[in-house]
Amino acid sequence: MKKNSIFILILIMISGIAHADSDEQPMLITVKRISMETALSIAKVAIETCRKEAVQIAVTVVDRAGDPQVILRDVLTPAVALTISEQKARAALSFNSPTSNLQGRFKNHGSVAKVDGLIFSAGGVPIQAGGSILGGIGVSGAPSGELDEKCAKAGLDAVLDDLEMAD
Amino acid sequence: MKKNSIFILILIMISGIAHADSDEQPMLITVKRISMETALSIAKVAIETCRKEAVQIAVTVVDRAGDPQVILRDVLTPAVALTISEQKARAALSFNSPTSNLQGRFKNHGSVAKVDGLIFSAGGVPIQAGGSILGGIGVSGAPSGELDEKCAKAGLDAVLDDLEMAD
Amino acid sequence: MKKNSIFILILIMISGIAHADSDEQPMLITVKRISMETALSIAKVAIETCRKEAVQIAVTVVDRAGDPQVILRDVLTPAVALTISEQKARAALSFNSPTSNLQGRFKNHGSVAKVDGLIFSAGGVPIQAGGSILGGIGVSGAPSGELDEKCAKAGLDAVLDDLEMAD
Amino acid sequence: MKKNSIFILILIMISGIAHADSDEQPMLITVKRISMETALSIAKVAIETCRKEAVQIAVTVVDRAGDPQVILRDVLTPAVALTISEQKARAALSFNSPTSNLQGRFKNHGSVAKVDGLIFSAGGVPIQAGGSILGGIGVSGAPSGELDEKCAKAGLDAVLDDLEMAD
Amino acid sequence: MKKNSIFILILIMISGIAHADSDEQPMLITVKRISMETALSIAKVAIETCRKEAVQIAVTVVDRAGDPQVILRDVLTPAVALTISEQKARAALSFNSPTSNLQGRFKNHGSVAKVDGLIFSAGGVPIQAGGSILGGIGVSGAPSGELDEKCAKAGLDAVLDDLEMAD
Amino acid sequence: MKKNSIFILILIMISGIAHADSDEQPMLITVKRISMETALSIAKVAIETCRKEAVQIAVTVVDRAGDPQVILRDVLTPAVALTISEQKARAALSFNSPTSNLQGRFKNHGSVAKVDGLIFSAGGVPIQAGGSILGGIGVSGAPSGELDEKCAKAGLDAVLDDLEMAD
Amino acid sequence: MKKNSIFILILIMISGIAHADSDEQPMLITVKRISMETALSIAKVAIETCRKEAVQIAVTVVDRAGDPQVILRDVLTPAVALTISEQKARAALSFNSPTSNLQGRFKNHGSVAKVDGLIFSAGGVPIQAGGSILGGIGVSGAPSGELDEKCAKAGLDAVLDDLEMAD
Amino acid sequence: MKKNSIFILILIMISGIAHADSDEQPMLITVKRISMETALSIAKVAIETCRKEAVQIAVTVVDRAGDPQVILRDVLTPAVALTISEQKARAALSFNSPTSNLQGRFKNHGSVAKVDGLIFSAGGVPIQAGGSILGGIGVSGAPSGELDEKCAKAGLDAVLDDLEMAD
Repeated sequence: MKKNSIFILILIMISGIAHADSDEQPMLITVKRISMETALSIAKVAIETCRKEAVQIAVTVVDRAGDPQVILRDVLTPAVALTISEQKARAALSFNSPTSNLQGRFKNHGSVAKVDGLIFSAGGVPIQAGGSILGGIGVSGAPSGELDEKCAKAGLDAVLDDLEMAD
Repeated sequence: MKKNSIFILILIMISGIAHADSDEQPMLITVKRISMETALSIAKVAIETCRKEAVQIAVTVVDRAGDPQVILRDVLTPAVALTISEQKARAALSFNSPTSNLQGRFKNHGSVAKVDGLIFSAGGVPIQAGGSILGGIGVSGAPSGELDEKCAKAGLDAVLDDLEMAD
Repeated sequence: MKKNSIFILILIMISGIAHADSDEQPMLITVKRISMETALSIAKVAIETCRKEAVQIAVTVVDRAGDPQVILRDVLTPAVALTISEQKARAALSFNSPTSNLQGRFKNHGSVAKVDGLIFSAGGVPIQAGGSILGGIGVSGAPSGELDEKCAKAGLDAVLDDLEMAD
Repeated sequence: MKKNSIFILILIMISGIAHADSDEQPMLITVKRISMETALSIAKVAIETCRKEAVQIAVTVVDRAGDPQVILRDVLTPAVALTISEQKARAALSFNSPTSNLQGRFKNHGSVAKVDGLIFSAGGVPIQAGGSILGGIGVSGAPSGELDEKCAKAGLDAVLDDLEMAD
Repeated sequence: MKKNSIFILILIMISGIAHADSDEQPMLITVKRISMETALSIAKVAIETCRKEAVQIAVTVVDRAGDPQVILRDVLTPAVALTISEQKARAALSFNSPTSNLQGRFKNHGSVAKVDGLIFSAGGVPIQAGGSILGGIGVSGAPSGELDEKCAKAGLDAVLDDLEMAD
Repeated sequence: MKKNSIFILILIMISGIAHADSDEQPMLITVKRISMETALSIAKVAIETCRKEAVQIAVTVVDRAGDPQVILRDVLTPAVALTISEQKARAALSFNSPTSNLQGRFKNHGSVAKVDGLIFSAGGVPIQAGGSILGGIGVSGAPSGELDEKCAKAGLDAVLDDLEMAD
Repeated sequence: MKKNSIFILILIMISGIAHADSDEQPMLITVKRISMETALSIAKVAIETCRKEAVQIAVTVVDRAGDPQVILRDVLTPAVALTISEQKARAALSFNSPTSNLQGRFKNHGSVAKVDGLIFSAGGVPIQAGGSILGGIGVSGAPSGELDEKCAKAGLDAVLDDLEMAD
Repeated sequence: MKKNSIFILILIMISGIAHADSDEQPMLITVKRISMETALSIAKVAIETCRKEAVQIAVTVVDRAGDPQVILRDVLTPAVALTISEQKARAALSFNSPTSNLQGRFKNHGSVAKVDGLIFSAGGVPIQAGGSILGGIGVSGAPSGELDEKCAKAGLDAVLDDLEMAD
């Protein structure tokens, strides 16, 4: 169910701009991206939310292509949290799902779970608004993935209404 | 059973060109490769098959050496699908088996499943015709590996009869 | 002169959608991308142009984020041309300039020229239309960078008028 | 329980230097590091402890940032033990826990366990004194992780009292 | 002249805390780091300074160990600027010099200039205050290294007086 | 039992050359290595043994340091078998055990099993003679790890008597 | 002159099997490869030729796809010669030229010369016979590239007549 | 002159143990390695020598195979000096020459100078005694390569007489 949502969304987006004949795709396709300021707002709220829990984290916000837009690392968070937060953000974006929903998905050695650049532990959430996929948020450094995810979601919630209206 | 097929095939090919004495292998060995146009035909049918399911994918066709001949990525498919499709194609070629048959093969941590450049999730199929191994096809981006494989096989089916006759 | 053009373009694009106050960037920014079919048309014309010169090449078309959209490699082109064509395409996109103009730019050991993923030899051209940067094309495999670039430009020319009108 | 200890420690450290208002973090934060001589003392005792068990090992002591300060490899220890000891040391530092306590933590394919540079097998121990995290020790080469850990802990024990007093 | 400054600084720092006998280094050494908020202030001013020049950049602030503390990438800046800005920042920190002063330093193929993770083009500046090395700033994306450096320095200038006083 | 054998061997070797006082290790230690010709003899017999089973393989013989001395790849064996055979050979050498005995050793995600350069599937055997560890053999390409190991052992058996006498 | 030879050769090969209409490439293309035994003969003669000069080397013979077929390293040759010999062999194959002819080709920082997997120093020679490109040979370890090349060519000369006749 | 010395040495070593007929190499070859204690003595003197110049460095001693035996990094030396010192040590070992003599050797882009794992800047010296190559020393962190080399040589000088006698 949840796994299919990305493709349904994509279909809607394309059908809105595609021609009737599937052999005649438009040459140019319009996509939306969030501003750097929006990404920074998300990241700051994630940091602050975790600080209120007495936890220092790293947070990465990636754009629609999976490349970092903003990275903040609290001062005592270890450097490996940079990599982990980025890879959770990219996994959430690429699979259009919170990474907590992806944790049990890969059952075998050598499966897609091994591909470089993606981590499927809780703490990543996709950014969507107005039917568009816009990016991903990843958090690492809290003592549990659940708390990582709570801080990531707090960051998203802080801008989501405005994103929906901006669309 | 299925795991042995690659070596039986190889034996036939070599015996066709080898001398009677196994110590006297021929200096030159003739191998067949598919043209770029054939690889592109396979890739396009894979893309179109998945679009009919409202899914956008990336598809890679690798040559006999495991190097990409053609890569197509539908416009909204995330970039990680490039890597995944290539590694499924290479796994299918190298083990001469659909990757769906290889999913349960590796049971241990640290086994062959960890080697770089191979992914053993469904979505990869080998290209064979006339008793020769010719390449591999890998698809990534669909909500399930089964659908990835369906699109990869559709690409293969579109050229298989002609490949058998061309041989 | 040429080196500045990317930023002037960017300024125009942003000013077209930005608010008067630079502290109030819009939350969402709209960008354009070319379709997979357009990328494939570019790549096929590049291949065919070089074949007419009795040369086999690899060609990569990258999207606005620098990720491959289409890769074609002619059947006898060595595999390293895959990497080279992709990195020329990304360099042309990232610096918004034909790579032939960038060849003498970096004078020192250890400069930006060493960064992974970019090659500054002739054969890469950016894709622009309607004042937008849309992607990059890279070609490798011809006996000279000039011929690589000729084939890349032929690919671009084949779609440029339609891209301008599509905008 | 143990998993939370790092954050409690961090909280204490920050509260000791932070202002009352969480919006007004100090610009400069003071951290402590062990000297190279201390790191070397730790490493030598680890080597000697394992030699007494007729075992040759490699030992890495990393600083607070996870970068090696001292590495010793006994003469017949294989080179891969260099990498393993460093990654155990970094894991112990980053998670502020003996790696033996982290061995069962990651249950899924594709989880945080796959991130580069960290190994979660027994043989890594964090260096803490006076409420501060100061580094990590990793040992590899013994026939069991338990013995690796014993040698790492022996190295730490040899300096711990002095570290507590130095604080 | 300038190249020696890092070691003179270091000497001062150590002599301030070392015992008379060089064989008796203290076990613990105190170092200073800037807060995440300070790093973010630096990065934001760098972005804004370049925007006033109609240029979009990426900026990385690394801590004393060379690991990123804050990364901001303006919305249309290509992803490779992330890597370049980080490596300029690390080079400025590691050599304790603006990278513009390091551009002509390495004359030979295969020299230190090739080491991974460092770029010696203009746009990197070290962060020092009160006789301590505190981190590095790197900027990439402007049409010239000089403008990259101008924006990096503007970021530093915005906090330098406060850093000196905080010491 | 088997896991400890490497260290017992090492102890014997060292005690043979070490001084009575463990604080006074000799400055120079003598180690033995096999010649290139011996490594080639091993590799050729491994290839021939597998050919008799109608199987084409790749075989790597590594020296005492884990670096390849000889690599042979039969003409239709896929290139990934090069990597796999080398990593099995290095694993057998480093753990001084056939890799078939190591297959079940690592139970956890993120354990030593993930370290780069080692594969713990059947097909690797150590080379020992006269109480010395001399290298490792790895085979890949057969339809089962058992057959890979059979060919590797056949290669070893072909030279073992002579190695024992040469010692 | 020399640089064009690869493409003229390729044209001949294709025209021999292609249809009159360039839009109708054949689906299957036949290529030739040398046997493992031939590759081994080349490598052994290269080793022996250098030994007669009192030099120990590493030699790699790559197949048509650039993947190693045979690697021999004399017993005291350092491990880096493995990498260098392989990358010279691949460069000679990919550019269809002795690498000694390619040494001055790349004039700029950031050019094709930086691509991974290719080294353009003397010591690599392509394997051609009967108008076909069949592989490459690379040698490293001699005190000069000229001697490396001499040994590589001796290896080729030892089989060239037979290769021409086998065609 | 100097460049040939490694091969003359090697010849002597082999002729000392080889049979009269060059086709009958011995199966086992005896090589010497320095103990870990000797490597540590070298490294400590290098550190101390540089400290007397008010400079903090990193020093790596590699064994005959180029793998680190001992690494020491003074407490304020940046982490990149770890990599640089190791790669200077390996270059000095592999080319059997101080790296200061190798600085002008590679004149072209894409030459051997680009191979991973070797740095050809001053600061690396080989360890030889009794006609045997035994390892390499690399130093990084001083304001000039000359000072790096001075500290490396001081380390070597401290043990050289004993090494010659131990032989």
